[in-house]
Amino acid sequence: MKHFRHQHHRPKKNTLIIGREPIIKAFNEGKALDRIYMQATVHGEVIDKIKKLAADNNVPINKVPVEKLDHFNVSNHEGCIAQISKVQYQDLQAVISFVVDKGEVPLFLILDGITDIRNIGAIARSAYALGVHAIIIPDKGVGALNEDAILTSAGALELLAVCRVNSLMKAVDDLHLNGIKVFASEMTATANIFDCNFKEPCAIIMGAEEKGIYPALMKVSDEQFKIPMPGEFESLNVSVAAGVILYEAMKQRQ
Amino acid sequence: MKHFRHQHHRPKKNTLIIGREPIIKAFNEGKALDRIYMQATVHGEVIDKIKKLAADNNVPINKVPVEKLDHFNVSNHEGCIAQISKVQYQDLQAVISFVVDKGEVPLFLILDGITDIRNIGAIARSAYALGVHAIIIPDKGVGALNEDAILTSAGALELLAVCRVNSLMKAVDDLHLNGIKVFASEMTATANIFDCNFKEPCAIIMGAEEKGIYPALMKVSDEQFKIPMPGEFESLNVSVAAGVILYEAMKQRQ
Repeated sequence: MKHFRHQHHRPKKNTLIIGREPIIKAFNEGKALDRIYMQATVHGEVIDKIKKLAADNNVPINKVPVEKLDHFNVSNHEGCIAQISKVQYQDLQAVISFVVDKGEVPLFLILDGITDIRNIGAIARSAYALGVHAIIIPDKGVGALNEDAILTSAGALELLAVCRVNSLMKAVDDLHLNGIKVFASEMTATANIFDCNFKEPCAIIMGAEEKGIYPALMKVSDEQFKIPMPGEFESLNVSVAAGVILYEAMKQRQ
Repeated sequence: MKHFRHQHHRPKKNTLIIGREPIIKAFNEGKALDRIYMQATVHGEVIDKIKKLAADNNVPINKVPVEKLDHFNVSNHEGCIAQISKVQYQDLQAVISFVVDKGEVPLFLILDGITDIRNIGAIARSAYALGVHAIIIPDKGVGALNEDAILTSAGALELLAVCRVNSLMKAVDDLHLNGIKVFASEMTATANIFDCNFKEPCAIIMGAEEKGIYPALMKVSDEQFKIPMPGEFESLNVSVAAGVILYEAMKQRQ
């Protein structure tokens, strides 16, 4: 993990876009950006333009002290450095419309608090193999989906739609507005995964192993279920649990 | 991986038993041994005794040059160093009898060519949670199930029965003699996991991701099945596939 974090903080120079106008140009060319590191003290018309483009394109801005930017060891950063994304993020509404237009029944996976990019990679691999249309992740708290994540996914992260959203609560709202039911996988639930109907358009929320799903997010979900375990053992690994849930959904849909 | 291999070749001194008589004493006390490193050139009555005890207790002997033993940096090894096991291995027939005596329907998992101890740990975790009675592994080609394996298993490797056998072919024979059906999980199979009946006493063979199951072992299995995948993607990660298969078995048995 430390190694990954280190890479995350000092990515290779060829994965960076340096300076204000180059970043605006990248947005206009539709280049996928993972995040923008912006000096906390900069302001002005051009900065406002970058902020608006970032918001429109769901690219998070990390406000940082100038030392952080200097640490990238590039010249002329003008208070702004963007990191190019390895993964092409998709707009959630666009994916929903695309799936419905194809005549398919939407199946989404929402990852709440799953921050380990290798876990996300492993989950993406199963998701792609088992017919998920997109995984939905928050734009905060999740590291860049870099080469390591793509490797763990066996390439699935380059094939599967990934929707990175500003708020998972808002994403659930959007899903509801599109008639998509939202399930939550939660060890303490009373209902059993066998009794869930995944044949209808649905999304499934998975939480991190220790913390589970954020309570407010759990509250807006329509149904909660657990995977029953004869072994009375704490739980499955989160990527195994995801595989099991998606297998059940796939089986019901066949 | 390199780090693990290194640990495997130079374990901590307090996990070693050094010298001929101490090893015989350890056997007589019923201590679990992972393997014995034996100098290729030693022989005699005491060595024969150690070989017999090792064979009787299913402890593999690695014949090595003296330099390998000297490398452990201990004095008076007399050509023999044993490594204490972190996992208490069980006798397959004893486990079968125990399960049947309890009035339960045996469910075993056979791991063929799965050498990564972290994969074995992850599989053991799901196996324990989903009600498997024992995992069966070969005594060759698999690294010592050390602290890292136990950690990946979230402790399951210390709770679940692990049968380490000299030959997986022989283990399948033993299972057959006990009326236990042997399934093989294989991507190229025509039958579908949904159509398998896991309610009867059974064992399931899983192979490594790249190589699959050893052909001769596949031949002695009674039924082959695949997990169908709408994504037409290469395959699931082996520990996710194990989770999915054991979930299906658990579901059928509920």
